Amino acid sequence: MRKINVGLIGFGNVGSGVVRILQEKKGLLKAKIGIEVNIKKICDKDIISKRNVSVDKDILTKNAKDILGDPQIDIVIELIGGIHPAKEYIIEALNRGKSIITANKALLAQEGKELFAIAKDRGKNIYFEASVGAGIPIIKSLREGLVANRFNGVYGIINGTSNFILSQMSDNNCTFADALRQARLKGFAEKDPTLDIGGIDSAHKLILLVYLCFGKLIEVDDIFIEGIPRIALSDVNYAKELGLEIKLLAIAKKQKDELDVRVHPTLIPKNHLLASVGGIFNAIYISTDLAGNLLFYGPGAGQLSAASAVVSDLVDLVRDMKAGLFRSSLNVVPDKSISKLKKIDEIESRYYIRFMAVDKPGVLAKISGILAKFGISIASVTQKERRRAQVVPIVMILHESKEKSLRQALSLINRLDIIKENAVAIRMEEV
Amino acid sequence: MRKINVGLIGFGNVGSGVVRILQEKKGLLKAKIGIEVNIKKICDKDIISKRNVSVDKDILTKNAKDILGDPQIDIVIELIGGIHPAKEYIIEALNRGKSIITANKALLAQEGKELFAIAKDRGKNIYFEASVGAGIPIIKSLREGLVANRFNGVYGIINGTSNFILSQMSDNNCTFADALRQARLKGFAEKDPTLDIGGIDSAHKLILLVYLCFGKLIEVDDIFIEGIPRIALSDVNYAKELGLEIKLLAIAKKQKDELDVRVHPTLIPKNHLLASVGGIFNAIYISTDLAGNLLFYGPGAGQLSAASAVVSDLVDLVRDMKAGLFRSSLNVVPDKSISKLKKIDEIESRYYIRFMAVDKPGVLAKISGILAKFGISIASVTQKERRRAQVVPIVMILHESKEKSLRQALSLINRLDIIKENAVAIRMEEV
Repeated sequence: MRKINVGLIGFGNVGSGVVRILQEKKGLLKAKIGIEVNIKKICDKDIISKRNVSVDKDILTKNAKDILGDPQIDIVIELIGGIHPAKEYIIEALNRGKSIITANKALLAQEGKELFAIAKDRGKNIYFEASVGAGIPIIKSLREGLVANRFNGVYGIINGTSNFILSQMSDNNCTFADALRQARLKGFAEKDPTLDIGGIDSAHKLILLVYLCFGKLIEVDDIFIEGIPRIALSDVNYAKELGLEIKLLAIAKKQKDELDVRVHPTLIPKNHLLASVGGIFNAIYISTDLAGNLLFYGPGAGQLSAASAVVSDLVDLVRDMKAGLFRSSLNVVPDKSISKLKKIDEIESRYYIRFMAVDKPGVLAKISGILAKFGISIASVTQKERRRAQVVPIVMILHESKEKSLRQALSLINRLDIIKENAVAIRMEEV
Repeated sequence: MRKINVGLIGFGNVGSGVVRILQEKKGLLKAKIGIEVNIKKICDKDIISKRNVSVDKDILTKNAKDILGDPQIDIVIELIGGIHPAKEYIIEALNRGKSIITANKALLAQEGKELFAIAKDRGKNIYFEASVGAGIPIIKSLREGLVANRFNGVYGIINGTSNFILSQMSDNNCTFADALRQARLKGFAEKDPTLDIGGIDSAHKLILLVYLCFGKLIEVDDIFIEGIPRIALSDVNYAKELGLEIKLLAIAKKQKDELDVRVHPTLIPKNHLLASVGGIFNAIYISTDLAGNLLFYGPGAGQLSAASAVVSDLVDLVRDMKAGLFRSSLNVVPDKSISKLKKIDEIESRYYIRFMAVDKPGVLAKISGILAKFGISIASVTQKERRRAQVVPIVMILHESKEKSLRQALSLINRLDIIKENAVAIRMEEV
């Protein structure tokens, strides 16, 4: 076997990056693997627009069947994103004996059960290194590099857009709206940024991390998700004064027989490595039973960064095929010590709370009285300004408390007439 | 094939960790790879002392020939360390058709050329994930995860002992001697710590990183090596005042057609991720052409951490053998854009310099006059104390200067009668 034929579906940003790498690194890759990788066909609905790479027009097609139906194509790279028709293409490719490479976290998060089952049934693989952390080899590290490990927890900054916005707010003292505007200007935010800033994209990626770390394919609905739009600049600044940084963290941690999985803005100590992850960078912090605590850091997006991951998947597949057979990748094995998912109501956490209250005697007594009634104790409290009879922020750090109790307490406090806005609560994490 | 037989040479700390993982994770590994891994024999000069793992006495031997000569053993794990007889064992194992796993950085750094050549000739592999950064999957990431990338530079904190000592000095304001004593007490330093604190161990590991990043097996003698024993507590503290942290960095960076490879104490900005790597932790920061700048962080030592890496190598080998043949790992391909190694005299760097000078008028004029004569310009200068007619430290930060010029200037300055100790110079790095 001297040449492997690949079909690429999706000739957009990452797709053209993959083509560019395969062209520019042709010699390097052939020297490393001893085989030529040939892009036999490229499918896209737009085969006219110029890309930053030039290809033979004959290999372009608007019809995916030209790839799926080509028996000479062994590997299909799916980079169109979205659920349909990506899902149907992948299923057809698997059924026709092809292996899959995809960067489609939304698809795998939602339809992974079905897709992985079909792949297993067909003895084929779905590789997805580019779906989390772009060029950071996190999937390979979890699956192969840490093969003997069991995982206690994974904590990820895995949405570059959100991290860019929070970093801008923290570093340059700008509001959420300003930071989002800058993200848009720099091309770091989509026109509709909901998936990113709302935490959904992080949840999709977290599902894949949980799959590899704990061997379970959970549903998006199983994850408590809270985005960053509620974060005010004042919260970022008050947190800083307390030696804390706010990050949108994707969290999955084992607690006895429960798995606690959630995505939300999280306060972490400034001196933790995760707090230093700025801009569009991503980082995944992992707690293992053998290899200790590890961190993987790198750009979370970018044409060539994501394409680098796609090509590493491609090389893995080619190496297997070079051996004259399709070697299955390592099986994903469920962590049997986990019997259920923890509900958000049942978690215990420390909290940062900001109340907006009228500045008059007795306010603190009322608030702390209600908290006490729910068994919640206060670690520190600061009234940030003094403006008699006006609304001022009161910032509290709470000791470890039950989320359910806190919610009940806050709903009572929010109804007090001295309270002028709903309280802002941000969970803290001892990573 | 349902079982793979492994021979372990070296039943010390890491070796017994490997046995423990293979025992405790037997079910997990079998579920992941579909094959049982069996430790058929263990060789050690001491087969009597108790380890934190129990094995059948029949598999223990003092004679390595029992492993090397056993045709049923396909994989030999070498964990005795040192050059001889590890080298001879590995050669014999390769000649007898066995694959090798080793954590022996000193051996590979010194004898890698010969060993890798024999392995290639025999169509076998030498895996060495545990040799750099213990359980951090850095070798696999460089080799496979970043397979399409070319590397601009690699910057490693890869000696836990040295990093522990520097962190102690920085965090707890203790002297080098005190910090070394603590490292010994905690078991983080060998009886003779020269290899660690002298930078040799970092150089050995750097050779392996350079091999994977740039495709060249350089010699220890090619590397400028400076250890940490000259670092004074005052330097650590002055650096902190300047927003800098001192780390023992292993550096390899491409500059046009030259590769600049060195190990020395290095000043880096406090807000760089590498500056936050404390204690015995390791981190490798990599600049690539496709995947951007990446960081890999984790414990740099530890029984189970290193053993975790050995077992991941083992699983890789088993997966290959499961396919019924020994699949060669990816070839290492030289970066042809590099034509030579840069000599330390030829580097340009910013420097921190501490002079110990008599506090009297004209001192600064004399020092800066000599620097100017060699074309070296001063970015900042601070006289740390005022004690008329006594010896006080003067701390300078120099703009980018030639190392050769600096050495010449310092040797003249050190001879001035107002200078009472040889100047301390620490290189700064823009990572």
